[in-house]
Amino acid sequence: MLLADLAGTAVFAIEGAVSAMRAGLDLLGVMVIAFIVALGGGVTRDLLIGATPPNAIRDWRYPVLAFAMGLLAFVFHTQVLNLSESLLTLLDTAGLALFAIAGAQKALNFGISPFVSMLMGTITGVGGGVIRDIVLARIPMVLQADLYASSAFSGAAVLIIARRLGVPPVTAALLAAAACIALRLASVTWGWQLPRITV
Amino acid sequence: MLLADLAGTAVFAIEGAVSAMRAGLDLLGVMVIAFIVALGGGVTRDLLIGATPPNAIRDWRYPVLAFAMGLLAFVFHTQVLNLSESLLTLLDTAGLALFAIAGAQKALNFGISPFVSMLMGTITGVGGGVIRDIVLARIPMVLQADLYASSAFSGAAVLIIARRLGVPPVTAALLAAAACIALRLASVTWGWQLPRITV
Amino acid sequence: MLLADLAGTAVFAIEGAVSAMRAGLDLLGVMVIAFIVALGGGVTRDLLIGATPPNAIRDWRYPVLAFAMGLLAFVFHTQVLNLSESLLTLLDTAGLALFAIAGAQKALNFGISPFVSMLMGTITGVGGGVIRDIVLARIPMVLQADLYASSAFSGAAVLIIARRLGVPPVTAALLAAAACIALRLASVTWGWQLPRITV
Repeated sequence: MLLADLAGTAVFAIEGAVSAMRAGLDLLGVMVIAFIVALGGGVTRDLLIGATPPNAIRDWRYPVLAFAMGLLAFVFHTQVLNLSESLLTLLDTAGLALFAIAGAQKALNFGISPFVSMLMGTITGVGGGVIRDIVLARIPMVLQADLYASSAFSGAAVLIIARRLGVPPVTAALLAAAACIALRLASVTWGWQLPRITV
Repeated sequence: MLLADLAGTAVFAIEGAVSAMRAGLDLLGVMVIAFIVALGGGVTRDLLIGATPPNAIRDWRYPVLAFAMGLLAFVFHTQVLNLSESLLTLLDTAGLALFAIAGAQKALNFGISPFVSMLMGTITGVGGGVIRDIVLARIPMVLQADLYASSAFSGAAVLIIARRLGVPPVTAALLAAAACIALRLASVTWGWQLPRITV
Repeated sequence: MLLADLAGTAVFAIEGAVSAMRAGLDLLGVMVIAFIVALGGGVTRDLLIGATPPNAIRDWRYPVLAFAMGLLAFVFHTQVLNLSESLLTLLDTAGLALFAIAGAQKALNFGISPFVSMLMGTITGVGGGVIRDIVLARIPMVLQADLYASSAFSGAAVLIIARRLGVPPVTAALLAAAACIALRLASVTWGWQLPRITV
């Protein structure tokens, strides 16, 4: 579990570093954005559910890992910026599922109601990217495009509904991951979008 | 009291949905911005005064109501986008007064000093709109235009001063609402502005 | 100590007011940005380390001081906007060193690990300016230019390493301030920059 969590942190940190380098930030900016994308969602969830200090502050391994991945991505930027889009999407989708499920479960453990725990799982998955977009002064991508946040919500919702129905934890987590990953990959593959009003 | 609070939440959620539809966001974005405008101020206040988890996280009725109003505003967008500006201003002013007063009182109940409680009331009233503007990557309207935040502050200040002078709670709240609403409507009607330096 | 902290708050509030007046905000906006720049870093640190309510909420003297400096800077805007850049840089550097050191020490006192305490010191020093930039819808300056955040981190790191090596508190703080101030002034004087990838 810890290993999976650290793997998700590393993947999100690399993605953050890529977006920071594309935005022309310096080495510090790259490391800070790597930290934000990797840990911002979890920190937000922990502040909201009252789990303070947040895990990423309490356990130094998370920030050290995020900064180290940011630094590595900066040093090996030629290789990192040449990673194929489909590989990045796959890794990101795995990280999204993991964060959404772990986040929903943690909220539930803190006595948060089922529906709000689904929201907390979603925030864990997408919060880091949202804060990154806010810091880079652009409208968060997840509010505008494809089913990214919806996939995170689906994973969190399947987990919580399955747990309520008495499904054992590991099976529930696998079902939830399947739901999140399937919806995300299907929406990317076929270009699914949520409806939008034109005014 | 609870009913008034839920009514204020519903009004702010609809306003949030309107601004999100005007910004071209998809259904998810509309629901998220409805949530932010309705509950962002109260969540910020609760985090700052140490009332964690914030009320909107602890009590699932608030997020469900905000999302439901966002969804309804999206479905009935033709009607909602045609609501008259003056009706929206009236509803918004009522919500602002309510949130500012309830927020100041809650801060006071948590042992926060009178002056800072006035600030917490102001944040409860205007915080959701400020976070919305930040997420939509624009300079918060309340820092630039008319006496919106000043009206919220007036309401919170009148409440706290009246309570200090021994005025009973309900009378204090009515006086405070009158102050907030009068200042807001007067400033809209006569175009009052705060001074500004031209550099 | 309290006096130094209040002096740092006043300096940062004036800087905030200057940037808000340059951005064309009204009196309220100037006071709010003064508050944010002066107290935003400390509030963020306190929320993250679980010291709630944050000091700036608990102790009314801090917000009153920040608002008063914002108001004074607005009233005496001719004089304030004519302060020389080098004087402002000196004052700002002193405030940065003070906030970074005090913030790192406070995190350590709350049982946060040494490395994360260095981060908390850095956030205390630069957080207010970052939030200001986010509110004004621009990419935070510290992610793009010179060694501002790096200087804050150096100060926090020297403090914590010195304390670990058994250096007495006052000596450690003086060493840390010297490190932060020297790095900041050297980077401004000689135009030092962190490396950056061009993509």
